[in-house]
Amino acid sequence: MTEFIEVPKGLDRVIVADTEIGDVRGEEGFYHYRQYNAVELARHCSFEQVWYLMTHGALPTRAQLAAFKERVAPHRALTPQLRELLPHLVGASPLDGLRTALSAACAARPMRPVLDIDEDARAEDALFACAVTPAVLTAMWRLGRGETPLDPRADLGYAANYLYMMTGEVPTAEAARAIEHYLILTIDHGFNASTFTARVIASTGADVGAALVGAIGALSGPLHGGAPARALDALDAIGGPDNIDAWIRGELEAGRRIMGFGHNVYKTEDPRSNHLREVATEFGGDIVDFSKTVERRVVEILAEVKPGRKLYTNVEFYAGVVMELSGVPRPMFTPTFTTSRVVGWSANILEQARDSKIIRPRARYVGAPPPQPVPEGGFED
Amino acid sequence: MTEFIEVPKGLDRVIVADTEIGDVRGEEGFYHYRQYNAVELARHCSFEQVWYLMTHGALPTRAQLAAFKERVAPHRALTPQLRELLPHLVGASPLDGLRTALSAACAARPMRPVLDIDEDARAEDALFACAVTPAVLTAMWRLGRGETPLDPRADLGYAANYLYMMTGEVPTAEAARAIEHYLILTIDHGFNASTFTARVIASTGADVGAALVGAIGALSGPLHGGAPARALDALDAIGGPDNIDAWIRGELEAGRRIMGFGHNVYKTEDPRSNHLREVATEFGGDIVDFSKTVERRVVEILAEVKPGRKLYTNVEFYAGVVMELSGVPRPMFTPTFTTSRVVGWSANILEQARDSKIIRPRARYVGAPPPQPVPEGGFED
Repeated sequence: MTEFIEVPKGLDRVIVADTEIGDVRGEEGFYHYRQYNAVELARHCSFEQVWYLMTHGALPTRAQLAAFKERVAPHRALTPQLRELLPHLVGASPLDGLRTALSAACAARPMRPVLDIDEDARAEDALFACAVTPAVLTAMWRLGRGETPLDPRADLGYAANYLYMMTGEVPTAEAARAIEHYLILTIDHGFNASTFTARVIASTGADVGAALVGAIGALSGPLHGGAPARALDALDAIGGPDNIDAWIRGELEAGRRIMGFGHNVYKTEDPRSNHLREVATEFGGDIVDFSKTVERRVVEILAEVKPGRKLYTNVEFYAGVVMELSGVPRPMFTPTFTTSRVVGWSANILEQARDSKIIRPRARYVGAPPPQPVPEGGFED
Repeated sequence: MTEFIEVPKGLDRVIVADTEIGDVRGEEGFYHYRQYNAVELARHCSFEQVWYLMTHGALPTRAQLAAFKERVAPHRALTPQLRELLPHLVGASPLDGLRTALSAACAARPMRPVLDIDEDARAEDALFACAVTPAVLTAMWRLGRGETPLDPRADLGYAANYLYMMTGEVPTAEAARAIEHYLILTIDHGFNASTFTARVIASTGADVGAALVGAIGALSGPLHGGAPARALDALDAIGGPDNIDAWIRGELEAGRRIMGFGHNVYKTEDPRSNHLREVATEFGGDIVDFSKTVERRVVEILAEVKPGRKLYTNVEFYAGVVMELSGVPRPMFTPTFTTSRVVGWSANILEQARDSKIIRPRARYVGAPPPQPVPEGGFED
């Protein structure tokens, strides 16, 4: 007889794979990409350097980085097929539009199953998909407002070019660097549902595009993707310093969660939140001061109302503030997150593709015992 | 400290969920949908009856079936958006095209997260996606050959209409019923990788379309989807009865797998294969006789060459024969499988959506120990 193994629902704390990509140490408030503290990478590296690290396993040399940028450059623009296709997708949510457009672009390339190609070819497919994602999202944003999609600017880095393709204006160095910090911090974060989805699909030997398209779908789930815009909407709802306490207590009394606070894995301050608070502080200004006051009061009031449960800001809270200050429109907050996470998914897909073991669990049947005879004509009555 | 649970790679034999949808008893050569033997359902029911059973949990009454068909009917045709979009997707593989088109159609509906809607609304979304899938696949097939997509025929059942929309000819009752048997037999088959993918995505609260699109991606993997056309290609390669033994021994000596034989779960004859052999036998003719001879010799030679390992035909072998005899073109074999499996995925998504627990496992970090200091400027050199 086959022996089965029972695990907690949702696979909580179930280790399903070995990885060299990174890890989250929730109890230490620490996470890393490869062997580097992710926050240190944000401080010292460009997005392209960390992108290379994630998908190639080591930081690039200067020559490798230059060659990598050369490979990325042609894919920062929409393909001719996407130029034709995207106007037909206007009206879809940004994630649904990206899911559709990336599916079409990967199919047209065409991508071949990871099982049938070597590591270099897989890496090229992943590079294509990551590089074209900002072009798709910014083009859809502009098309949805009746504006023409823009070509990439070869003189701009990844983050600055992303802001330019969205707004049509070359961002300040401060805004570009702030968004770059945000993007680096959000490339990867353990085996969340979208990353796991990408790996399950890759484990069938399917192509990189198939796995990324599935991951985008998982990210669109309300229990997963989060919504940095909601934290900012809360700041708007509070309105000003005089209303902070009343608003917080009102939300708690109504039984609603305070958006931007609390995390499943971190039992300490979220290192991403800490760093984005610093980035926001460099901008300075009223919204930053107000955010910090709200943060302090939420933490204080939560400690009072829910004693013993340590609740801190999560990545959403200051992510929203940093994106707002950098000129990202609120509907583009979650899409902006996708432009970095696609790199993390890709690293996971490339790692999974090195293993030819399909991920295929079991379920326990708990319905009415079979076989019941099928009723005459197949009707219940 | 958090305690972790280690499980075998690939989640072999790991029970990740309870289900009332069905089960595969590999050691008994038996599988069931709900409480009914799947083969008995194929014998006695129409595809629409089993579709209703899978997504609603019980066989329909006559009135329920009539109402169900009324709900399905308007969605058997392409939406106006799909009519515009599909010509831009010509050239993609059928599964990639379906992935893209279904992504677009679900986004345009628009579908809302399963977490935000009730069971009826989720079921309507699933019904739409299942009903439009044959229209998408047949339209892409025809567009790829320079033919015009056809409107559905209201007077035809699901299987007959599918063959009609593909070939432009109303099939014989024998062909329609044979494909209907095939479609019913392939609706569901345990927690394979695509079904699991659909459930992981649904567990995030994402919409039905997001989960189906991910599942299609998983099915496109060479380790998963299978390829009924390959078994038929093997029959062609053998050519005639005189060459059977030489061909089989040649393949085995070259270390190649014989397509259409062997299954991961079944340790006996595959019940789907047994039933499809019967269906093929009703057609009769040279190809059926030839198939049976090849089957007998493969089983005998495998028993001789690999004694102790019991290898039988799997679903692919006679599925290919039945589809060929029913007039399905070979490139449409795997797409035809998708038109039934989308119903099984939907049943699984609807079941998963009743549970608000996100599926989010863990990985073990096995790379170089962090934190290493980030080198100056982020360069390795």
